[in-house]
Amino acid sequence: MTALQPIPYFSAILDFAAGKDTPRAFLERCLARLEQIEPAVGAFVCRDRIGARIAADGASQRWRLGRPLSPIDGMPVGIKDIIETADMPTEQGSPLFVGWRSGRDAASVAALREAGAVFLGKTVTTEFAATEPRGTRNPWDTERTPGGSSSGSAAAVACGMVPTALGTQVVGSILRPASFCGCVGFKPSVGGINRGGSYDYLSQSCTGVLSASLEDAWLVAVNIAARAGGDPGHPGLQGPPDPPSAQRPRALAVLQTAGWDVASPEARRAFEAAAGQLAKAGIAITDRHADPAIEEVEGAISDAIGLTRAINAWEGRWPLNTYRNRDRSKLSQSALERLATAEAMTQADYGDAIARRQRSREIHGRLAGCYDAAITLAAPGAAPLGLGSTGNPVFNVPASLLGIPAISLPLLSAEGLPLGLQIMGFASEDARLFALAAAIRDLLAGRQRRSENLVPGSC
Amino acid sequence: MTALQPIPYFSAILDFAAGKDTPRAFLERCLARLEQIEPAVGAFVCRDRIGARIAADGASQRWRLGRPLSPIDGMPVGIKDIIETADMPTEQGSPLFVGWRSGRDAASVAALREAGAVFLGKTVTTEFAATEPRGTRNPWDTERTPGGSSSGSAAAVACGMVPTALGTQVVGSILRPASFCGCVGFKPSVGGINRGGSYDYLSQSCTGVLSASLEDAWLVAVNIAARAGGDPGHPGLQGPPDPPSAQRPRALAVLQTAGWDVASPEARRAFEAAAGQLAKAGIAITDRHADPAIEEVEGAISDAIGLTRAINAWEGRWPLNTYRNRDRSKLSQSALERLATAEAMTQADYGDAIARRQRSREIHGRLAGCYDAAITLAAPGAAPLGLGSTGNPVFNVPASLLGIPAISLPLLSAEGLPLGLQIMGFASEDARLFALAAAIRDLLAGRQRRSENLVPGSC
Repeated sequence: MTALQPIPYFSAILDFAAGKDTPRAFLERCLARLEQIEPAVGAFVCRDRIGARIAADGASQRWRLGRPLSPIDGMPVGIKDIIETADMPTEQGSPLFVGWRSGRDAASVAALREAGAVFLGKTVTTEFAATEPRGTRNPWDTERTPGGSSSGSAAAVACGMVPTALGTQVVGSILRPASFCGCVGFKPSVGGINRGGSYDYLSQSCTGVLSASLEDAWLVAVNIAARAGGDPGHPGLQGPPDPPSAQRPRALAVLQTAGWDVASPEARRAFEAAAGQLAKAGIAITDRHADPAIEEVEGAISDAIGLTRAINAWEGRWPLNTYRNRDRSKLSQSALERLATAEAMTQADYGDAIARRQRSREIHGRLAGCYDAAITLAAPGAAPLGLGSTGNPVFNVPASLLGIPAISLPLLSAEGLPLGLQIMGFASEDARLFALAAAIRDLLAGRQRRSENLVPGSC
Repeated sequence: MTALQPIPYFSAILDFAAGKDTPRAFLERCLARLEQIEPAVGAFVCRDRIGARIAADGASQRWRLGRPLSPIDGMPVGIKDIIETADMPTEQGSPLFVGWRSGRDAASVAALREAGAVFLGKTVTTEFAATEPRGTRNPWDTERTPGGSSSGSAAAVACGMVPTALGTQVVGSILRPASFCGCVGFKPSVGGINRGGSYDYLSQSCTGVLSASLEDAWLVAVNIAARAGGDPGHPGLQGPPDPPSAQRPRALAVLQTAGWDVASPEARRAFEAAAGQLAKAGIAITDRHADPAIEEVEGAISDAIGLTRAINAWEGRWPLNTYRNRDRSKLSQSALERLATAEAMTQADYGDAIARRQRSREIHGRLAGCYDAAITLAAPGAAPLGLGSTGNPVFNVPASLLGIPAISLPLLSAEGLPLGLQIMGFASEDARLFALAAAIRDLLAGRQRRSENLVPGSC
């Protein structure tokens, strides 16, 4: 099948205000895509067309009266099915929770509802937002994985069924599917968006956004944070109500990460071409060979996957143990294996692991004096063939471990399929990362538009 | 009615091992108390006598074979009804959740189950562990409040229905009811005990323990932490598997807190007598008048209640907003008022509040160089008359704000009723606090035993 472009929302706002377009008409464009593509892709666990149309009509009326609740009043949104919704089940990708309803909205969903967002449905997640896939297909090639765990959110956004969807990431669950499906992925600083009611309790986990554009991602994130804040104890994502203006970076660090060794030659070339383009534009690009401080960060994140798996295992012992006690047969083999790993760990093992993580964060933080951000690939290559695995998160886990904000921009390609350029910021500087990412997009998008038959307008 | 003593568990362990006593026989002693006292006190929302007897029989068998799962294999426990249990409803003190079952155990409950604990029932909590009482009465005088929000846990432990019960504290919900009912209360360092599955999401909230003895409290806490850890991202409460041996403090700071001005003359005298006794035993006792560092801490916690209320309001906006959207009529007036406060706050207000909290923690931390711990009252006096309020938490909120461990020991009295001596430690030094508290108990208990007609054996 041929993938269709994302449908960005931000550019529609002016038309809503001018009376040239309405949220209801916007929703109908999304629903048309959904009717056309969803049967082949399977991005949604459940849909609520009637509720969405009612909500979009309310938003249309408010725009007509010049009293929208927020800039995202009327924005169609998909909600990853690990996040509670009052009006739809929350199945968590698990047979244990088929049809289960919490009767309430998660903090992020309550905030979006307050801001006027239109909920089109729950998007497919792997089991408990971990690794076991639940059948969503990549809209660019339905024989390929969309990535995970925010599989449905990425697939739905990439082909225009919604302009944005909530995702969560603790390893690579936002950036990897964004890369594989060709949309913008945003993983905030740890604690940036309130996770209340997201069944995803791990200490480096984040609620984030998959979107048709950087602007859409920012509007969703900032409008949640203003109403629901961050995780308790965190000030929450900060920044202007409008998408930050592009701000050209002066210096970027290249973080190869452990991913470089397994990246496809084509992916490497795509990244190097983009880095070369940025250098030509006058941005200083520096890698591990030229700066010992970058080399030290590379060392500190070289086992990001092993360390993250240890941390996640211990933290995920509960609730997997109580689910196993309830009905072992309804847990995947991979979930049972994670639980076994957890039960072989001690509290001291975990204490060591989070101390190592803290050290890696301190080492990375020192780069802030010399670099505006770091760049790397968002995946080792195009989405791999097959639906049995959600692909390799090796390029994504460093930002998760470091607790820093990261964005995947759909600017590269490999095998004629999307590939993300990842931009990693510094903790709590999410707004600045958006400003830098916008400048990088503006610099690179022209080149891509000329040389690739991809969908640059989506970013 | 006459209150009965708590029934400590720790001293029974040797008898279990020696075959002189069994968990089943211990449980029956608790059940006898329950039959006798529960109708007047109302400590439980629901009980599970059959399940408890089956579990106690299993534990009895394991002790007989010399293979107990842990030292608390067979320990009867009450679970505050804000904490999930797989086999009983979790009603959260709210009409919205009558009969509601999550189908899983909270992390703390799963850990206790793994360690062999016997669940006697769910104990009454105020609405969402906040201020709205749900009818439990003080076993010393049923016209008085037991305190809250861990109302049922304190009442049940104080009169021997269980040797221990889980509680939670974000303002004063463990230490105050422990003081009013006459049992040991332990609020750990923030993050010390995994709150997964406790419907109590606030950043300074803790799961803790109400117990018949210091030793019981330690065994419960350390056996949860070893299996469930702390909150994700925290190493969790650390310490020896056995209750820490008494360690006499050399220097104690007196923190009067904002409570001193509202404490009853009798309560003040009781505290001063205890402090005098400790001074006589050779412990240096220093207050705000003698040390500017203590005066600075007093200043930093002088508005602990105001600051805590602001923090809790913002953090509690969710889920109260989604509950209000579901059925406003089922929320108390006080819950609706908290929500209105939250909705009038901005993200920036909250950021300011948590920055102030962080400064107060830093100021308090500096005392660690000079003092082993701080002491103060656990309440302004005996439990007040009336069931409409759970009493004043003014002496408890500083430890909550500071995120430090604190223990209330039932060593004082006022109006012929129990009054707690509070000992406040330093962050993450929970085991040391237990050692110091044991020494203070040993020093003071003799005096109390002679001069008061209370129940010193309970501590």
